[in-house]
Amino acid sequence: MALKKTPVNGMKDIEPEEMDVRMYVESVIIDTYTSYGFIPIETPCMEDIRNLMSKQGGENEKLIFKVLKRGEKLKLDQAETENDLVDYGMRYDLTVPLCRYYANHSADLPTPFKALQIGNVWRADRPQRGRYRQFKQCDIDIIGDGTALAEIDLILATTEVLGRIGFADFEIRINERRILKAMADYCGFPDEGFDSLCITLDKMDKIGMDGVAAELQKEGFAKESIDSYITLLDGIGLAEDGFAWLMEQLGDLLPADVIDRMAEIFEAVGETKKTNFELVFDPTLVRGMSYYTGTIFEIAMPDLGISCGGGGRYDKMVGQFTGHDVPACGFSIGFERIIMLLMESGFHIPTEHVKLAYLMERDLSVTLLTEVIESAQKARENGDEVYLTYMNKNKKFQKEQLEKAGYEIVEFYNTLDQRQVKGDLPWQNR
Amino acid sequence: MALKKTPVNGMKDIEPEEMDVRMYVESVIIDTYTSYGFIPIETPCMEDIRNLMSKQGGENEKLIFKVLKRGEKLKLDQAETENDLVDYGMRYDLTVPLCRYYANHSADLPTPFKALQIGNVWRADRPQRGRYRQFKQCDIDIIGDGTALAEIDLILATTEVLGRIGFADFEIRINERRILKAMADYCGFPDEGFDSLCITLDKMDKIGMDGVAAELQKEGFAKESIDSYITLLDGIGLAEDGFAWLMEQLGDLLPADVIDRMAEIFEAVGETKKTNFELVFDPTLVRGMSYYTGTIFEIAMPDLGISCGGGGRYDKMVGQFTGHDVPACGFSIGFERIIMLLMESGFHIPTEHVKLAYLMERDLSVTLLTEVIESAQKARENGDEVYLTYMNKNKKFQKEQLEKAGYEIVEFYNTLDQRQVKGDLPWQNR
Repeated sequence: MALKKTPVNGMKDIEPEEMDVRMYVESVIIDTYTSYGFIPIETPCMEDIRNLMSKQGGENEKLIFKVLKRGEKLKLDQAETENDLVDYGMRYDLTVPLCRYYANHSADLPTPFKALQIGNVWRADRPQRGRYRQFKQCDIDIIGDGTALAEIDLILATTEVLGRIGFADFEIRINERRILKAMADYCGFPDEGFDSLCITLDKMDKIGMDGVAAELQKEGFAKESIDSYITLLDGIGLAEDGFAWLMEQLGDLLPADVIDRMAEIFEAVGETKKTNFELVFDPTLVRGMSYYTGTIFEIAMPDLGISCGGGGRYDKMVGQFTGHDVPACGFSIGFERIIMLLMESGFHIPTEHVKLAYLMERDLSVTLLTEVIESAQKARENGDEVYLTYMNKNKKFQKEQLEKAGYEIVEFYNTLDQRQVKGDLPWQNR
Repeated sequence: MALKKTPVNGMKDIEPEEMDVRMYVESVIIDTYTSYGFIPIETPCMEDIRNLMSKQGGENEKLIFKVLKRGEKLKLDQAETENDLVDYGMRYDLTVPLCRYYANHSADLPTPFKALQIGNVWRADRPQRGRYRQFKQCDIDIIGDGTALAEIDLILATTEVLGRIGFADFEIRINERRILKAMADYCGFPDEGFDSLCITLDKMDKIGMDGVAAELQKEGFAKESIDSYITLLDGIGLAEDGFAWLMEQLGDLLPADVIDRMAEIFEAVGETKKTNFELVFDPTLVRGMSYYTGTIFEIAMPDLGISCGGGGRYDKMVGQFTGHDVPACGFSIGFERIIMLLMESGFHIPTEHVKLAYLMERDLSVTLLTEVIESAQKARENGDEVYLTYMNKNKKFQKEQLEKAGYEIVEFYNTLDQRQVKGDLPWQNR
């Protein structure tokens, strides 16, 4: 039986044209983030399954690709549940591995530690357009800085990456988990219902306020609380300065530093940003992951109606590994979304070098072959890219394929006369 | 219970110092290989388990990390063997996925197709020094060229990478599976014993000829055949031109094109190589993978007694996916070995940019913070790397850590006087 030609369900081969764009974007990301002092690190793609299933990842924990135990550890006849069969899992994000990394290496790392990670993650989600089961994430995180400088640094660096790739006029929407909590308190939602309230509020952009209200009612929340929440959101919309108005309403329900922190972020980012984007307070922003504890943010491309990344503060996760909390904040670029947008917009990478295809007649003598290879070596030293090969039987099709791929064709024949006409050694003409 | 801080068994976190070296080497690899017209592609890290267990990978098939089926597909109560539980596996090399990729996309690709792949592979091997269960491979392959030009191109490109990283005076050892077969025929080894003969011969560098002879005898091969093999190897060693002498002995047992092909490779590589290395015929070279059909080669660092990569011709693998054979040849750099050697030699990367750590007093006003951020932005525009943060309580330790990491420290205080003394905005001095 012939082997299977297609990638496994929901994952994809990356073809040359897309690879070029990916490699270009990755180089801009690395250049920009390292200029901000973020330090590249890498962790294994697999983690201990207990680390992955520790209730940090919310819904993502249901989507883990699990790795079968090996050798004597696998006791198939004694296994009662699937968790008896597995010891490792594929990471579903880069944040849980980062916290493990930090816990493992903090003695060797500067404080605060600014990490840059670019790597694949895996989620066994239902495959759909533009969403794959293996996808790349690009995260920057600052561990050990509880001040607003962490948020400011992350937002400036990430928006500079987007600007350098060519995006403009997007929004960074920002909110605070503690504002969400104060709003819930203000409206009389019970403490123990906060997590499920957030999960429902997170659907706002898909099902609207009416849909959210209906769902909250179905979940058994009091009608007065829901109405009060709607009134609060309406009030923010109607006020000249929605943020200030909301802060006034919430008053003592808010921890003391929330307003100052948010004000500092708005002022510093507004004054120093190098890319044309809008920082917008969005009281409906929730973010899926349950590990967030403070500021949360999201990249919104309003024209396209999609989010291209996000992040926030998660001050309680490192403590799960070390036993004592360390403040942490991160921003993740939705790499695959960015690439999809660039590919769809017919993005062209600024390239400098010439691409040459040297096509040689098939019965070329070894002496002449050597001469042509030397010519190719010299062109490469000049910074050109040289694809060296023999002519196929169907030379016309071969040339069409190569021209389509951006190559300039140079032909080499076995007789001196033809060489002079068709393909004089090209470095001599430069 | 606290979560686990260490990576899973046999895999490793990559710390900043090593990351720098890895990223540098990767950039040299990409620059060099693309200058030869190799085109970057990527495939998913998981493949259908049936593709991975199709007897292409020899011993590596025993080392596959297998991925548990999910949802309804997993029928734990009906499973009899472990293969009933899994549908995917982690790739153990980049060659099997490449052939699947080629089979899936050949209509869109130039002929011959020159592929560059850099990616992780996984093998559940016994962990040992310098050998990990997740490791990076860098492969170039040429699919669709049956001529010696493929071998020549691969050897020139790979040795140029090694030269540009700083390696010299190494050897590329070369042999041919068809020469090995002719030698076996010459000595009277039976056809059906050839695979197991090769597996034993492959141990030559570990157990020596005596060990190999003893093992072959234990496997039941005729003493005359073994003696004859030893005499043949001795003869090669004693002859002035061992290759020519062996070819004479083997005579008609060799397919007609073997000698010409090898001669062409030696002449063209010898004349055009840009790195100082020796191409050496090695009749004891076997290579583990059972998929090789012709030329095989290996990078040997004689001073270090280790191999840093290898490859060869595998003309029968694409046919397993498409039903018709397409010639193919590849060369894989042992990325992890190269990195290990560089790290152990205290390799320093040529860097151009200045690394600055801006340390700010903790109660800095937002206005002054904004000013410092703007200073950092300008330094970044100049190509500097700026790590911006507040002073820790233990400022001395913080500075030591940062200086160790290569940063030049610039301090900012909240009063104008101190600023002028300790940390005048640095771009003004440039």
